[in-house]
Amino acid sequence: MRRIRLVVAYDGTNYSGWQMQKNATTIESELVGALHNLLGEEVPLIGASRTDAGVHAMGNIAVFDTDSKIPEDKFAIALNHYLPEDIRVRYSDEVTSDYHPRYEKTVKTYEYTVLNCEIALPAWRLYSYHVYRPLNIESMKAAAELLEGEHDFSAFCSAGSQVKSKVRTVYEISIQETPLSFCTGHVLRFRVRGNGFLYNMVRIIVGTLLEIGMGRRTVESVQEALATGERQQAGPTAPPQGLMLAEIRHCDCEKNIEKDNDF
Amino acid sequence: MRRIRLVVAYDGTNYSGWQMQKNATTIESELVGALHNLLGEEVPLIGASRTDAGVHAMGNIAVFDTDSKIPEDKFAIALNHYLPEDIRVRYSDEVTSDYHPRYEKTVKTYEYTVLNCEIALPAWRLYSYHVYRPLNIESMKAAAELLEGEHDFSAFCSAGSQVKSKVRTVYEISIQETPLSFCTGHVLRFRVRGNGFLYNMVRIIVGTLLEIGMGRRTVESVQEALATGERQQAGPTAPPQGLMLAEIRHCDCEKNIEKDNDF
Repeated sequence: MRRIRLVVAYDGTNYSGWQMQKNATTIESELVGALHNLLGEEVPLIGASRTDAGVHAMGNIAVFDTDSKIPEDKFAIALNHYLPEDIRVRYSDEVTSDYHPRYEKTVKTYEYTVLNCEIALPAWRLYSYHVYRPLNIESMKAAAELLEGEHDFSAFCSAGSQVKSKVRTVYEISIQETPLSFCTGHVLRFRVRGNGFLYNMVRIIVGTLLEIGMGRRTVESVQEALATGERQQAGPTAPPQGLMLAEIRHCDCEKNIEKDNDF
Repeated sequence: MRRIRLVVAYDGTNYSGWQMQKNATTIESELVGALHNLLGEEVPLIGASRTDAGVHAMGNIAVFDTDSKIPEDKFAIALNHYLPEDIRVRYSDEVTSDYHPRYEKTVKTYEYTVLNCEIALPAWRLYSYHVYRPLNIESMKAAAELLEGEHDFSAFCSAGSQVKSKVRTVYEISIQETPLSFCTGHVLRFRVRGNGFLYNMVRIIVGTLLEIGMGRRTVESVQEALATGERQQAGPTAPPQGLMLAEIRHCDCEKNIEKDNDF
């Protein structure tokens, strides 16, 4: 049996998230359907990251096993033929049979987009979170810096998580501000990079930083949240459509805690 | 009677263009419906620009006359209450009764977005034209420069135009290249600014420049197209979803030919 890896981009708008479920169209169900069309058999997929409904991806990873003789790089083209336009396999390659997308040492990068201007711009509504209040970016950046590093992120994890350890290392939380060309306001692009993430962790980090930007909580409040580990000490979960799983890199990271991750 | 001006942004994906038509949902029909809900009467709209199906706008303009006592700036908020999320009135104000959005001296700005990379990225599919061949940007910029200025743009106009003069002044055709963060490739943002545009003119300019970028036609071919005025001397019409009407400015331009414009 060969193990084939797919790097997948998708617009999550029309899907009930990644994971297969009854009576719902998901990214996984579309991929499994396309594999069925291509190979004539039911092939189970192992995904790296179970993104929520409405969340987008530029580089999620999935693997499957097959006896097919299709050259490794041709799976991408062949599957795209069967997939809807809002799901694209960016590339495919063959990996060793012990490769598991959730058990490898990993660096994941998420991007979260906030449209910070007076009016909700229609073409942005499915790919950003619209915040019309002015934001103090400097406070947000200061708080972001306090969240970087190795911490117990229990306060930044939604109920329902099944992991044992909630210690994760966040390598980067940066905020890039780009002015909009035809209206006053900015696009804020949060880039969050780490060795693993808890359930809703990026969205709670962004929701907390936005409250700091609005002056509703202090920069130092994130230290209290980290210290107490209580969910109510952090901010709300920012909505899904601003989130994009940008990249998953397998590497010789210092620590491998991916086996114990929700997402 | 008061004349109220609306500046309107929309995602054109789900609409059959601006203009009202039988058995189709259009931006105009949605606005007229919202006005009916707000004012309890059928109010005809005069639009500045009849964008095609799939084309987006950040700042189209429309006016209507009413005896309503609603403060000028409150129409925007009130109409947004009745409008779907993909159409937003950005602001509203009262203008003089002789103001006509198509007869004023005008500078219009369009943006056209090309995603130039190997793979079609799902979240871009409704807001850009995907071109996977590599493009020679320098040739495209050189040809763009030749198109700037006052010319007879007959070759850059689709059949069906009803205007008499096809002379227009294009103040700017710029191409901005931004690298993509998570895949090799670029986003090209064409910015086209002029005192008026013929039917499909921006999309034919972009389609022509892209053929030059692919090496399918020479930089100088645009001069021949301008000189002969023959549609077949210019390139194909680029698809609608890359186009956005960014801004309409009324100003003391040198020349007013807006009365004679298709769009």
